[in-house]
Amino acid sequence: MGRYEEQRKFLKSNFNEFKNIKTDKMKGISQPDATKPYDKLCEVVALPQVNMEVLKNPNIYKCIAERRSTRFYSDEAMSIEELSYLLWATQGITGTNKVGLILRTVPCSGATHSFETYLFIMNVEGIKKGVYRYDPIEHRLLFIFESEGIDSKIDAITLDQPFVPNFAKKAAVIFAWSTTPYRSEWKFDITAHKKILIDIGHVCQNLYLASESVGAGTCAIGIYDQKMIDELLELDGDEEFVIYLAAVGKKLK
Amino acid sequence: MGRYEEQRKFLKSNFNEFKNIKTDKMKGISQPDATKPYDKLCEVVALPQVNMEVLKNPNIYKCIAERRSTRFYSDEAMSIEELSYLLWATQGITGTNKVGLILRTVPCSGATHSFETYLFIMNVEGIKKGVYRYDPIEHRLLFIFESEGIDSKIDAITLDQPFVPNFAKKAAVIFAWSTTPYRSEWKFDITAHKKILIDIGHVCQNLYLASESVGAGTCAIGIYDQKMIDELLELDGDEEFVIYLAAVGKKLK
Repeated sequence: MGRYEEQRKFLKSNFNEFKNIKTDKMKGISQPDATKPYDKLCEVVALPQVNMEVLKNPNIYKCIAERRSTRFYSDEAMSIEELSYLLWATQGITGTNKVGLILRTVPCSGATHSFETYLFIMNVEGIKKGVYRYDPIEHRLLFIFESEGIDSKIDAITLDQPFVPNFAKKAAVIFAWSTTPYRSEWKFDITAHKKILIDIGHVCQNLYLASESVGAGTCAIGIYDQKMIDELLELDGDEEFVIYLAAVGKKLK
Repeated sequence: MGRYEEQRKFLKSNFNEFKNIKTDKMKGISQPDATKPYDKLCEVVALPQVNMEVLKNPNIYKCIAERRSTRFYSDEAMSIEELSYLLWATQGITGTNKVGLILRTVPCSGATHSFETYLFIMNVEGIKKGVYRYDPIEHRLLFIFESEGIDSKIDAITLDQPFVPNFAKKAAVIFAWSTTPYRSEWKFDITAHKKILIDIGHVCQNLYLASESVGAGTCAIGIYDQKMIDELLELDGDEEFVIYLAAVGKKLK
């Protein structure tokens, strides 16, 4: 084990250590907001209501069987209906629980959902190229900024991986999920961090399968320059920072 | 940030630090086995070939929309066909890549799949109660041991969570995934551990959705006694240890 000891420890349950901790929740500190505030004057893009008609390959067995990490895409634009469905499938709100916490299409420890979804939109019909954030409450996009050359920027951020040439130049959209870890630490303290990583895996797997069902392909991106992407998205890198990315585009015929 | 600093660091990309490391793969050390060896004389349970006919709710949109973490189950047994499908959906082999690495129904960084699936079977038609391991190569179960009172043991291991009363007494089967981290460290060194946690999230999300599609419900279990379950499964706790669990049972009508 040796040099990996500390890192392996992180994969384990530390619940017995946690039992002696008084969490911020127990201390009566109020729960942090479930979503990040936004500028009420910002430009928004309404998303069409999610509709089963968008599905080309609705059978879940086939979606699971045929899923592959897809690194090359066709030039075909994605439709706004398809993007709407992928956002719903990954972070959409589907109800509230007994104590009023928001429930989503993905499971999350203690319904503490610490994620925000940023999108680098390159090739979606009817949406101008640029960087957006998903507002799950109103199911719409918040426009953040237009950017000349976001394709090259995202390629630099994902370190121009030789096996993923020009990711962003080919993909229709790149999902970049951030975490605001305090949303989970408030309740789970030192047990939060393992949960957060597993939970973003839940999210990304829904993106994989939902993409399959609309004839698109996904490739998760775990290799990226932390500082570069946090700066680009104006995240402070401590209280909120990017945790995982995924590229999506229509499949080659 | 303060006391969480070290743990938050673990959620971030450490790729720039990794770039200077010579991994075991780069050193020419041979790749560890993709699956854990087993006693060739052990009792095995053949699993039926996975078949779409087992799906009661095959529409992926509905599976995503209706999924909830399900903590109470009916007394109805699961069928061996259903269990076979859930095992395939979570760790089944669906091909090999260009360099001969096994590909599965779930994405995994570098196809290094570090997981083994252990099952606590309580209520599956035609399979005696006991602890098993999934053999994805032959798509079958390896019998490990029968155990009087495994239900109580798993309840103790999952710390008799008050919100999950008698988990194992109600569930038909409990999945317990272990990781053998060296399978990923060999290639990814210090970047392996974040990937392993995200990857087990991918796996568990497929269990959630596949369960929905056969009229069953799942609840992931992140709270457990590490030492107790590793000892029960005779894992050494360093080179292999449990990382995540999930209960599955047929839904209440």
